[in-house]
Amino acid sequence: MAETTRNQSSYKEDVLNLISRFAEFGATAEGGIWRLAASKEDKDARDFLCTWFEQNGLATLIDEVGNIFGVLELDSSQDDTSFFCGSHLDSQPHGGRLDGALGVAYACASALALKEARAQKTLKSAYRRFVVSCWTSEEGARFQPSLLGSRVFVGQLPTERALNSQDADGISLEQALSDIGYLGGDTIPKADRYVEVHIEQGVELEDADEGVGLVSSAWGARKLTLSCLGRADHTGPTPMDARKDALLAASHLVIAINDIACSTDLKLHSSVGRIEVSPNSPNTLTDEANLWIEFRAADEDVLDRAEEQFSAVAASVAQKTGCIVNEISREARPVIQFDKESVNSAAGALEAEGISYLNMTTISGHDALQLQSVCPSTLMFVPSKDGISHAPEESTSNEDIARGFDAALAVISALVATPATVKGACHD
Amino acid sequence: MAETTRNQSSYKEDVLNLISRFAEFGATAEGGIWRLAASKEDKDARDFLCTWFEQNGLATLIDEVGNIFGVLELDSSQDDTSFFCGSHLDSQPHGGRLDGALGVAYACASALALKEARAQKTLKSAYRRFVVSCWTSEEGARFQPSLLGSRVFVGQLPTERALNSQDADGISLEQALSDIGYLGGDTIPKADRYVEVHIEQGVELEDADEGVGLVSSAWGARKLTLSCLGRADHTGPTPMDARKDALLAASHLVIAINDIACSTDLKLHSSVGRIEVSPNSPNTLTDEANLWIEFRAADEDVLDRAEEQFSAVAASVAQKTGCIVNEISREARPVIQFDKESVNSAAGALEAEGISYLNMTTISGHDALQLQSVCPSTLMFVPSKDGISHAPEESTSNEDIARGFDAALAVISALVATPATVKGACHD
Repeated sequence: MAETTRNQSSYKEDVLNLISRFAEFGATAEGGIWRLAASKEDKDARDFLCTWFEQNGLATLIDEVGNIFGVLELDSSQDDTSFFCGSHLDSQPHGGRLDGALGVAYACASALALKEARAQKTLKSAYRRFVVSCWTSEEGARFQPSLLGSRVFVGQLPTERALNSQDADGISLEQALSDIGYLGGDTIPKADRYVEVHIEQGVELEDADEGVGLVSSAWGARKLTLSCLGRADHTGPTPMDARKDALLAASHLVIAINDIACSTDLKLHSSVGRIEVSPNSPNTLTDEANLWIEFRAADEDVLDRAEEQFSAVAASVAQKTGCIVNEISREARPVIQFDKESVNSAAGALEAEGISYLNMTTISGHDALQLQSVCPSTLMFVPSKDGISHAPEESTSNEDIARGFDAALAVISALVATPATVKGACHD
Repeated sequence: MAETTRNQSSYKEDVLNLISRFAEFGATAEGGIWRLAASKEDKDARDFLCTWFEQNGLATLIDEVGNIFGVLELDSSQDDTSFFCGSHLDSQPHGGRLDGALGVAYACASALALKEARAQKTLKSAYRRFVVSCWTSEEGARFQPSLLGSRVFVGQLPTERALNSQDADGISLEQALSDIGYLGGDTIPKADRYVEVHIEQGVELEDADEGVGLVSSAWGARKLTLSCLGRADHTGPTPMDARKDALLAASHLVIAINDIACSTDLKLHSSVGRIEVSPNSPNTLTDEANLWIEFRAADEDVLDRAEEQFSAVAASVAQKTGCIVNEISREARPVIQFDKESVNSAAGALEAEGISYLNMTTISGHDALQLQSVCPSTLMFVPSKDGISHAPEESTSNEDIARGFDAALAVISALVATPATVKGACHD
């Protein structure tokens, strides 16, 4: 790229162009994206990103779980410190074009703006380098747990466990990454600060008519996988009272999980997004039904109570249906407070630019929640039309995307000038 | 085979040997069978059967939907009439070794006995030929509808619709049959009589301590496939009251379907054996859940009432969950009476041999129900241990299998000597 001065609106064009290009990989007929982690479509998006890094002077690094990093030197006179910024490129099945891809595009365009400032000698950086990061398997759609790549990066998930994670066809993440050429081994600098911008996936910004959200805390979650074990038998002659129908047991649990959230005035969300049934044949009763369950709340006590209620219901469903209900796995994601000093700095930067914003809490999980456990992290939101996400209808207007980038670049520029003073997580 | 006189117990050994050999194809670690229609495992079983036909002097014919027939000439002085006898070789996923395979083994061993009688000049046949039949996709596990091959044979299902039936991976039956080399085109003689022996898949014989059941009627069934349409959305931030969760709607329906059968004193069975959920990701609400539903009863009025109750429930579930509930397909299988004259002849043959039997009704569907629509058909049962079937635990003792074969051969020998006087179905 020629060393001519660029104005900020040209970076917004870069953002829109990058989002359009990312949206080509795994595009579906309904206008959405089907780009599961470490799939062929994900490989294509990753290849595009790596080529973009190369063309724009960023050094590409790939770690053991396929996280991709594009490294831009900012100021070699600084200590060995790194400012990370990014999101993810994997999607849900039938997902949307912005979830993750927007944050990666913002990070790339921000790198161009910082590079330009460096060239113009106007850059004030307290960090030696800026690292665009693209985390593997944030969605958890193909490989569980979700936030997989960032979890490994911050040391919350052993590399080996992540690589052994299997998709529904029994293919391990290690195999899948190897197949697409993204099983790396580069040494990655530690993160001293992290910024991520994401679509809101809710309607708060839209309702408040605000273009930007600054997230100060995150709901906690309890994620359970459960197995209902019944007995396979013929759907016809088997007497009704002799059946042990695991799908019937699972159906009672799905309703109970919904009722627990809906029967309280407390802010509690619950869901069952996934069910696996065996043998799943029209003429045979189900002998095994597995459920993927979530409870989410801003308050650990509310989560504790929800789990207690659910345990009681599960026991009664087991008794009623003659099935065995087993917990296969349980994950507790704590309620998290983002680093207050960083939130204040970001707020100050937005106010200095005359950009209004909304103070927010995130309910959905993001890689920034993992990064906050090792360095001051900042999460910002831009609006999602009608709050829809994880669906092809997911959208944000180009104006809101551009407005969001102005805000993001203001925050990134201010934080790049601010040394990271706070280390480590700040869990509530 | 040398033309030496064989005694009847040697045919029982043939039956046990054939069942053992069939059980090799698609054998699972749990001792069951996974031999879906037109799969590699099914091909192996079919190849074995065709080789057996060849080795034992039966001419092999294969029709357009892969039904296999082994033709034995009985008496060339008779009119162009054919006595069919058989069952099927496909299984449920995690199915058992006897469902279908027992009936094919009985038919094969009966062919040997008839051939021997012909050689000994002791055969009294009112038919020109005996046709061992192995029907394609009786189970309906991979390709729907079930009883597929026999439906096409009797003209109840167009060949083209059967061949276009797709499995869960979008592979058509035509493609699958072509892949295993069983997309035939032979002209098959019309059936003038049919006999099928099957395991009971219930506990009536066991409870009555009887070795053989003679089936005089069959329950009717209503088989529905239903689609619940909701909206994909993030399981986290989406407010509980803004959700349209198709899995929640489907769960209410599964419970309602069970309740309809359990809340009545009438003999009514109901089930949901199969559910398909999309996108089926832990972090995304379900936008589509499809259900495969059955109601079964001995009385059409009871079925009508069950369907009416279910329609009302479906409407209320749709309203409660914000989802759309659509009927995708509906199949009504009538209550059927087997040809009374044949039942009486079979009963007489058993009594003449001093074999006691139970008069029975079948709840499960069998190819004999289809054949009854074009020719007098006879269905017999042998006991199933604990009534378990469609499961690896499915079993019948060797003694019961041998006892059942004595009964079957008595009935077949008597009916082979009896011209088919009744044509066409006798629906209740």
